[in-house]
Amino acid sequence: MRTVTTVPELKAVRGAGGAGTVGFVPTMGALHEGHLSLIRAARASTDVVVASIFVNPLQFGPDEDFDAYPRNEEEDLELSRREGVDIVFLPGVDEIYPEGDSTTISAGELGMVLEGEDRPGHFDGVCTVVGKLFNIVDPDVAFFGQKDAQQVAVVKRMVRDLRFDIEIGVGPTVREDDGLALSSRNRYLTEDERRRATALYEALRLGAELIDRQDLEATEKNMWDLMSERGLLPSYARVVDPDTFVPASPDGSKLLVVAAKLGRTRLIDNLLIEE
Amino acid sequence: MRTVTTVPELKAVRGAGGAGTVGFVPTMGALHEGHLSLIRAARASTDVVVASIFVNPLQFGPDEDFDAYPRNEEEDLELSRREGVDIVFLPGVDEIYPEGDSTTISAGELGMVLEGEDRPGHFDGVCTVVGKLFNIVDPDVAFFGQKDAQQVAVVKRMVRDLRFDIEIGVGPTVREDDGLALSSRNRYLTEDERRRATALYEALRLGAELIDRQDLEATEKNMWDLMSERGLLPSYARVVDPDTFVPASPDGSKLLVVAAKLGRTRLIDNLLIEE
Repeated sequence: MRTVTTVPELKAVRGAGGAGTVGFVPTMGALHEGHLSLIRAARASTDVVVASIFVNPLQFGPDEDFDAYPRNEEEDLELSRREGVDIVFLPGVDEIYPEGDSTTISAGELGMVLEGEDRPGHFDGVCTVVGKLFNIVDPDVAFFGQKDAQQVAVVKRMVRDLRFDIEIGVGPTVREDDGLALSSRNRYLTEDERRRATALYEALRLGAELIDRQDLEATEKNMWDLMSERGLLPSYARVVDPDTFVPASPDGSKLLVVAAKLGRTRLIDNLLIEE
Repeated sequence: MRTVTTVPELKAVRGAGGAGTVGFVPTMGALHEGHLSLIRAARASTDVVVASIFVNPLQFGPDEDFDAYPRNEEEDLELSRREGVDIVFLPGVDEIYPEGDSTTISAGELGMVLEGEDRPGHFDGVCTVVGKLFNIVDPDVAFFGQKDAQQVAVVKRMVRDLRFDIEIGVGPTVREDDGLALSSRNRYLTEDERRRATALYEALRLGAELIDRQDLEATEKNMWDLMSERGLLPSYARVVDPDTFVPASPDGSKLLVVAAKLGRTRLIDNLLIEE
């Protein structure tokens, strides 16, 4: 495994990889089984696996947890090595956003609802860093986790709109035994919050059970109430179209999405119901 | 010469071009000697020359001349053929902005001053279409005219920031015998306006003559006044840094930029003074 920190090094090492296909797993580090499952998917389907570890300041709001976001470089590198990553790209902030950097990519309407409404500018930060990384790494396939469903939709939209010649692979959400979706932010939870955090997934399962028997608004209210009753502070509980994130139509695929705060920690989860 | 109208066709024809270098000249059609000089520069330095002809709605403001913008497809194709273009990409608006398209690229601060201030959203429209075309055509070198100096700066900034692996070639401004910079919009001018339109270049030459003898503000005022006295309605007359478009520093390269309206036609011009 090669670990590189600059764009020219990355390009040199990637270029030396020859004519094989390149799979790319962009991460913010603090790797967990969710990330590792994406690395395994890349390993299984492409010749050269590149992972990036970069906590992207542009996708954090001014009051968010950029400084506190878990960083564990040594363990991340060890896990990457163990999973057979060929190249780890570990740039500093100045390598991605050098002095004078000013061009950004905007997700448009899709990036302004739900997560985008709660986190203004978040998806523009995601698009900008992913667009840069796509041009730097030049992969054939890039892998993202379904856990961040709106991010998946935004990145797919960007690839289609800006005509990146890159396939997007989506890995299923990896969960703890009790249903909690893996997230680097789960480390923030107190013991009590950790117990109650299962309410997000329980709300989704309740929604999936009720959705055929009642209208969407009633289902959304049931999901919201379940989280609320467990002492969570819901941000949203919605049933949306999985590509556009507008309210789901009765006869298409439906994505149930929830977000809630437990103390100072904000968690999200989702469940896809395909038609 | 192959003329193609869809992205898949373009990719197929471009891919069939083999391993040679690709030069790309993006245009809005209504080709004049300025465009042709860029095509010749591409022809002289790369193996395969791709030109695009696309009047990009996204870079026109709601009160601007999108509908009136000169379109002359047959003549453009004939000129392209004569100059040895290999592939002309002539997409419809729906091919570049299909239903649901929403991702945009923003130039940031650099796109908000001068031309960007007079034409809000103009450079975001430029970045978005150029970013798409770069990903579609995948050129080694792309050619732009110095006549649109701020566009050159914005595109170079975008290439650097988003890490496109593309070199930007800049062709000198081509002028009529009396100094008027070639522009597709010159066709809008009445006979009287055409005579007075030389005031832009005269203002620039006056500025270049005076700049070492007085401060920037005085030079800017002299350029403004010359245009104004000739009956033009100046938008700006400035001396800026050629890369950042902030006010030029006394000991660096200086770009003199002017914009003015003659009747309903808005023209721009510039002159670079290198240190």
